[in-house]
Amino acid sequence: MRKLLLTLRFDGGAYHGWQVQQNGASVQETLQNAIEGVFGTRYGVTGCSRTDAGVHANMYCCCFCTESEISCEKVIAALNAWLPDDIGVYGCREVPKEFHPRYSCVSKEYVYRVWNSPYRNPFLVGRSLHYKYPLDEKALAREAAAFVGTHDFKGFSSSGGSVADTVRTVKCFEVARYGDEVVFSVEADGFLYNMVRIMAGTLLDISAGKIEKESIPEIIGSRDRSLAGATAPPYGLYLNRVFY
Amino acid sequence: MRKLLLTLRFDGGAYHGWQVQQNGASVQETLQNAIEGVFGTRYGVTGCSRTDAGVHANMYCCCFCTESEISCEKVIAALNAWLPDDIGVYGCREVPKEFHPRYSCVSKEYVYRVWNSPYRNPFLVGRSLHYKYPLDEKALAREAAAFVGTHDFKGFSSSGGSVADTVRTVKCFEVARYGDEVVFSVEADGFLYNMVRIMAGTLLDISAGKIEKESIPEIIGSRDRSLAGATAPPYGLYLNRVFY
Repeated sequence: MRKLLLTLRFDGGAYHGWQVQQNGASVQETLQNAIEGVFGTRYGVTGCSRTDAGVHANMYCCCFCTESEISCEKVIAALNAWLPDDIGVYGCREVPKEFHPRYSCVSKEYVYRVWNSPYRNPFLVGRSLHYKYPLDEKALAREAAAFVGTHDFKGFSSSGGSVADTVRTVKCFEVARYGDEVVFSVEADGFLYNMVRIMAGTLLDISAGKIEKESIPEIIGSRDRSLAGATAPPYGLYLNRVFY
Repeated sequence: MRKLLLTLRFDGGAYHGWQVQQNGASVQETLQNAIEGVFGTRYGVTGCSRTDAGVHANMYCCCFCTESEISCEKVIAALNAWLPDDIGVYGCREVPKEFHPRYSCVSKEYVYRVWNSPYRNPFLVGRSLHYKYPLDEKALAREAAAFVGTHDFKGFSSSGGSVADTVRTVKCFEVARYGDEVVFSVEADGFLYNMVRIMAGTLLDISAGKIEKESIPEIIGSRDRSLAGATAPPYGLYLNRVFY
């Protein structure tokens, strides 16, 4: 029996997130269908994290076990032939039996993309949040620095998250501008439900003057979701890197 | 009477090119509909060039005349409200009556994007040609240098083009790599029908060994379309800049 770790990209626009859902297509189910097409057997696939409906991934990792001896390179090609265009596998390697795509992960990086122009970009519709008013990326980087460290992020999570422990360690939070696009990158040992989307929404609300400057430490300390900003829409969010 | 010059981006995937067609939606018609929505009058719109079905634009310029005194900034906002997501206006300015978006143009730049990886990129489907085999961008740049200059490009045009004079001046042809993407950029005083797509296809055919290295000067000299490479698909092509 081999345990295979797949690495994939997906455009989440058409999916109700990673996890199999009753009410619509999921990436997990679509991938399991492709694996069944290739191997003739329905294997369960374990992912590195849940993702919300509409969220994208530049890098998503998941595992399944198989008796098949087919080479990793052929697994990739065969899966890509079965998968729809909005999911693409680009890595496959054998991992030890005790490897777990979620629990073996030491940290993950998400990016949140903001198209910052008065004018729509047709190529980024559904791929980057259109924010029309000027953003000062240097000022936002100073605000966001308050996220870095080990904190109780309960105020930056939506109800519906099931975890008891809401303490996470944010290793890095960067705000960078690439032309008319502003990108937030956040690496942490784990993320609460909607955490990055609420962080992004809070930064935009600070920029808009809806939330006071330099108040992020206070919002973190309050553990009060109502003090943080809006939950930014899912289509600007990408799981970007998974570190093992 | 004011003459307004609009600058727009469009994802050409859903359109039969710029020009009004009998058999499907065009960018020109869609824009004329939006202008009619905003101004209450159907104005004719003159474009800077025809584009093939499925070709994109990062910058496309076109003109129309109106008696309306509405400000340029408001024209942009109103048109964007009427236009579908795959077309976005980002510039509007008043130009002299004698200005013509096509004949006043001194040169244009097209880019052709190639996703050069064994694996599909879901975010670039329909946006960049997927080419699976390794490309040597430095070697291709040396080949492409032969395009630069004033030449008769009849061998690099498809039948169906209506022009008698097939001499054009290519000012610049660059081949650059950005990670897994290779981008051809070509600036010229004008382009023949399918010219950039045939140039791109020829470079890929040279890379694949289907056409001999260093044969571009000979193909140009032959004026024989059958010696050049395949016409690369439309969805990798972008009108990128228009110079006045």
